[in-house]
Order: sequence, then C-alpha cells, then structure tokens
Amino acid sequence: MKKLINAPEHVVAEALEGMAFAHADLIRVNRDPDFIARADAPVRGKVALVSGGGSGHEPMHGGFVGRGMLDAACPGAVFTSPTPDQMLEATKAVDGGVGVLHIVKNYTGDVLNFEMAADLAREEGIDVHAVVIDDDVAVKDSLYTAGRRGVGATVLAEKICGGMAEAGAPVDHVVDLCRAVNGAARSMGLALTPCTVPHAGKPSFDLAEDEMEFGIGIHGEPGRRRMKLEPADRIAEMLMEPILEDLPFRRGDDILLFVNGMGGTPLIELYVVYRAAEAIAAKHGLAVSCRLVGSYMTSLDMAGVSITALRLDDTMRKGWDAPVITPALRWGG
Amino acid sequence: MKKLINAPEHVVAEALEGMAFAHADLIRVNRDPDFIARADAPVRGKVALVSGGGSGHEPMHGGFVGRGMLDAACPGAVFTSPTPDQMLEATKAVDGGVGVLHIVKNYTGDVLNFEMAADLAREEGIDVHAVVIDDDVAVKDSLYTAGRRGVGATVLAEKICGGMAEAGAPVDHVVDLCRAVNGAARSMGLALTPCTVPHAGKPSFDLAEDEMEFGIGIHGEPGRRRMKLEPADRIAEMLMEPILEDLPFRRGDDILLFVNGMGGTPLIELYVVYRAAEAIAAKHGLAVSCRLVGSYMTSLDMAGVSITALRLDDTMRKGWDAPVITPALRWGG
Repeated sequence: MKKLINAPEHVVAEALEGMAFAHADLIRVNRDPDFIARADAPVRGKVALVSGGGSGHEPMHGGFVGRGMLDAACPGAVFTSPTPDQMLEATKAVDGGVGVLHIVKNYTGDVLNFEMAADLAREEGIDVHAVVIDDDVAVKDSLYTAGRRGVGATVLAEKICGGMAEAGAPVDHVVDLCRAVNGAARSMGLALTPCTVPHAGKPSFDLAEDEMEFGIGIHGEPGRRRMKLEPADRIAEMLMEPILEDLPFRRGDDILLFVNGMGGTPLIELYVVYRAAEAIAAKHGLAVSCRLVGSYMTSLDMAGVSITALRLDDTMRKGWDAPVITPALRWGG
Repeated sequence: MKKLINAPEHVVAEALEGMAFAHADLIRVNRDPDFIARADAPVRGKVALVSGGGSGHEPMHGGFVGRGMLDAACPGAVFTSPTPDQMLEATKAVDGGVGVLHIVKNYTGDVLNFEMAADLAREEGIDVHAVVIDDDVAVKDSLYTAGRRGVGATVLAEKICGGMAEAGAPVDHVVDLCRAVNGAARSMGLALTPCTVPHAGKPSFDLAEDEMEFGIGIHGEPGRRRMKLEPADRIAEMLMEPILEDLPFRRGDDILLFVNGMGGTPLIELYVVYRAAEAIAAKHGLAVSCRLVGSYMTSLDMAGVSITALRLDDTMRKGWDAPVITPALRWGG
C-alpha cells in the first residue's frame, strides 16, 4: 500500500487537522465528536444544512462546508458511517433556529445514524428534517444499501439547497427542493482500478489490466458487471444511456451535467469524458446549461469516473448559480 | 495502460474540446494553432500574461486562464513543448496594447520556443517580456533542463502577477514581480508511482511496492534518489528541509505554503501532508498567511506530492488575494 499517510488509524484525524490549517478562514474543525462547521456558524435565521458520511470521498463533505453550501459535515472513519453523536453535536452547533436539513446518502449506516441523531435533536427542540439521496441507477441493492445508493446528486443537492438556504428560503422550501433535486438526478459510475482502504492495506478487489468495473459504487463495492476496457467515448455512452433512460430525460430538458473523478483519475481524462458526455446530451436533444467537471466525490485512490445528470428547474438553477465559498467549490462570492 | 481516453493521439485535442464545453463562460479554445484564451480577450490597456507547456499537467496551464490570472495558455502534446506559432498566435490574440509577459517554465524546449515566439511578436510590434521559472531545488540539471526545473512557483507566479495585471499594474512592474516571485519560491516533489504517457503505453519508470522517488520532476524524470517509503510526516520534512535551507527562509518570514498533488493522489492524503508541512513551517518560525492545497500541477496519473514555499511581500500577498475567476482557481470575484 502506497499512501501519503502516517498510520491508518490517524488518517482521518490528521486530514481534518490539515483542513483546519488550510481553510481557517472558512471552516472550523471540532474534535470529539468530529465535525466541520462553517466558521461563522450558527447563522441565526438561516436554515442549516448538515451532511456527513464515511471519509475517503474528499472533498465531500467537509470541502463543501461554507457560505452557500453546508453548515456542517460529519466525517466517519474511512468508508464508515459517522456516529449519531457527531451528527447531533453538529446539528446543535449550526442550528440557526429556523430548521435543520440533514442530507443523507442512502447507505444503511448513514440512514440509521442520521435518523437517531434527528430524533435526539428534536427532543432538544430543533426542527430537523432529512432527505435521503439515492440517485445511482447502477444497482437496486448493494453491499452497503437497501435501495439505490446515493452518489453524485449529493454534491448537487448540497450546492443547490445551500444556495437557496443562504438566500433565505424557509425550511419547507429547502426540504422540498432537496427532494426535487434527488428526484430529478441520476448517476452512474465506473472504475478502472480498485481503491485501497488504509486499514485493509490491499486493494478492495482485483481488476485485470484490460478490465473495468461498470456500475461501481463509491466504496469499491461491486457494480453491474466486469468487462473489457473501452474507449472514453464508449464509456461515456455506457454511463449516459442508463442515466437518460431511467428518469427518463426528454428532448428539450435543461440539465446540469457533472463528470466526477474517483480520486486517482487525472483531470485531462475527465475533460475527455466530459466532451463525450455533453455531445451525447446534445444528441438526445438536452440543453446543458450548468456544468461541473472534477474530483468532488471520490473513492480514495480509485481511478474511474461517474456521470450525473440533473433535470433543472428555475429554482435549482438559481440555487446552483448562487454564490458559494467553500474549500472545494467557490464562485460568485 | 488504463486511461479514460479514445486514442493517445487525440487526448490533448479532445480534452481541449471538453474544456471548451465545460467553461464556455470563462475561456475560448482556438484550434490550429491550439491555445486557450480568456473569453473577453484581448483586454485593452491590461498587461497580458501568456504561459504554456506540455500537456499532462492539468489544470496547469489552461485551467488558469481567466480574469485575474492568465490571458492565454498554449498546450503542447503530452510532456512536449508547444510550438512557437502557438505562442505567437496566443500572444497576438490577447495583446492589450500595453505589453505581454510570457511565463516560461525552465525546460529546454519551452524556453527556446517562447524565445522564438517573443522575437516574432516583437517584429509585429508587441512589447513582449519573458520570465523563466526555475524553483525546483531537487536537481541542478535534468533530462529536460539546463539549470533548475520550473515547478510549483509557476502556479503562484501566474496567480500573483495575474492579479496585479488585472488591477492595472504596468508591464515593468508585472515583470519585476514575476522575477521576485520566482526568486522567493522554492519547491520539491516526490513520487509514489510513475506516470504513464498515453503514447508510450507503459509506466515511465518502475518503483517497487515499498519505494518512492525523491526529488521527482513533473515528467516522471528521475529525482535525487530512490528510497524506501516513509510516513507522511517524514516525507513532509524531507521536502521542507531542502526548500527552507535553499533560499534560505528565516524566522519571521511570512510565507505562502502550497501542497500540490501529482494527479493520482487523493485529497485526503494532501491534507495529511499539508498538516505536517504547516507544522514544520511553524517550528521554523515561519508565519503561513496564504495557503493552497490541491492537484494544480500534475504529472498525468502519478501518485505523489510537491511542496512549494514562497516568501511573501505585500505586493505578492495583494496579487494572491486579488479576485480570480478561472476553471481551476476561483475566489473573490
């Protein structure tokens, strides 16, 4: 295992300390329990957004904490749900008095723990709501999930809802918007290599030099099938087709197109895939009006890519375009 | 070779098309000769900044084109200098009538070709200046270089000089500032894995499972020595010590600290290294007032990290903090 780490058991804590050093103007890092909160939290009178999940997907979620996106993020151990007390303390720390939204990726541990944290927070008088994200069309159930997995739509929901919350939207609107984003987004991913969890010390699975895993999850869990490596244009088609069929997207739809790297894939390759994905969208009569290309939801060092398409409405576009100032996403601020 | 590409000979062109799709609001891509220019170029009355070099280092340089940074970037083939006609046409396209600065990394081909382009542009009446960046303390000469290689300081020089040019600084000031940044910056890098050039189809060198290459360049060219893998804290020390000794940096210096991923290294590991690097800076009595953590100057899929330290003065800090709106760096705009 070749990693820039000191010891597997210290990776998450040391990365959090590194984030605290690097982004002291935007965030503060709480330890025991661990969470990242925006530097000026709580923002009185603003709906607060809290997310979280296993570490190893950076910059998600800690890199999305800041003005116009998340108020707090709870990092678990690598590929392991954070605990209810992390979520509870984060919720209390950022509650601005007008409701808190938990954005939860659909993994069994995350869902159970966020439910428990929400119950505890409600007992303390906080108006907590939760939306579960489940946009992955690859598989129905998985090692980590009952139902579809939550993947790329999480980033989009956090940005769009964060933008509208910052602009003063009330909690019911933000919750509805989050559900709408999840309902209108579909994703699919693919891996060229496995990832190596620090504690495990060896790759999560084996792939031959000419193979790829199609429909991969973000924890190296199996996808739809293993198959021969294909050219980028064909890969983009194989990812886009089930995405577009599933919603389904229709001619004339205005979409946000997100090409995401899995951590070990260089940017030049993501642009090659993005080119193909936008061309396929155009061929289907879709208008791409918002775009994101980069490694935003990763699986440690896995080489691979996922594509997310979101059918936009005016509110979503407004939330997407709104100013955001976080470590990983920043514009208009 | 596992890459998200169609064919080695099309990677650069297709990535450029992908960038053009993804960032149409910020940049435009010219083909034959290939260069990326800011969407609103030429900006009359503003000093124009042009850079370029081999592809495979994305987001450098094309991702740094936009308001407050570069006016144009010329991408060569992978790890191959762009041609003088690319540089000449880019220079003519963005010349705002008050001088153009070429920011050139110290690689033999880049330096020669930028010199030729500058001569040709001067014949057409454009006031072209050039600054060569050579901040790598790892080696004196290399496979690609006479003298030190230009690495991380390039990103900082482009941002700082771009910020001051946008604010209206005259060409002599921008040129002097670029020289000052280069003179006050030092870098050192290290690889855990080689990279694979698409045309070559196999890794640029071999590293055993327990080895790292210390003092690596950004083309997979050899570094100072091959050695056993060390923990991240020790790696940070091994990179920081020669950097701090070389300038030398002194107690009380105010610095910008930049931890850069080489393309295949996940962000969580960069934060672990950043934590150690900032602690080492503090131990040496340095005040870190500006920070950058991410994969900004890469070597295709190489796993590894480089550290750059820049001794700041007030003008540099002002240029760094100035608004920037580019595909890869964006703040304050």
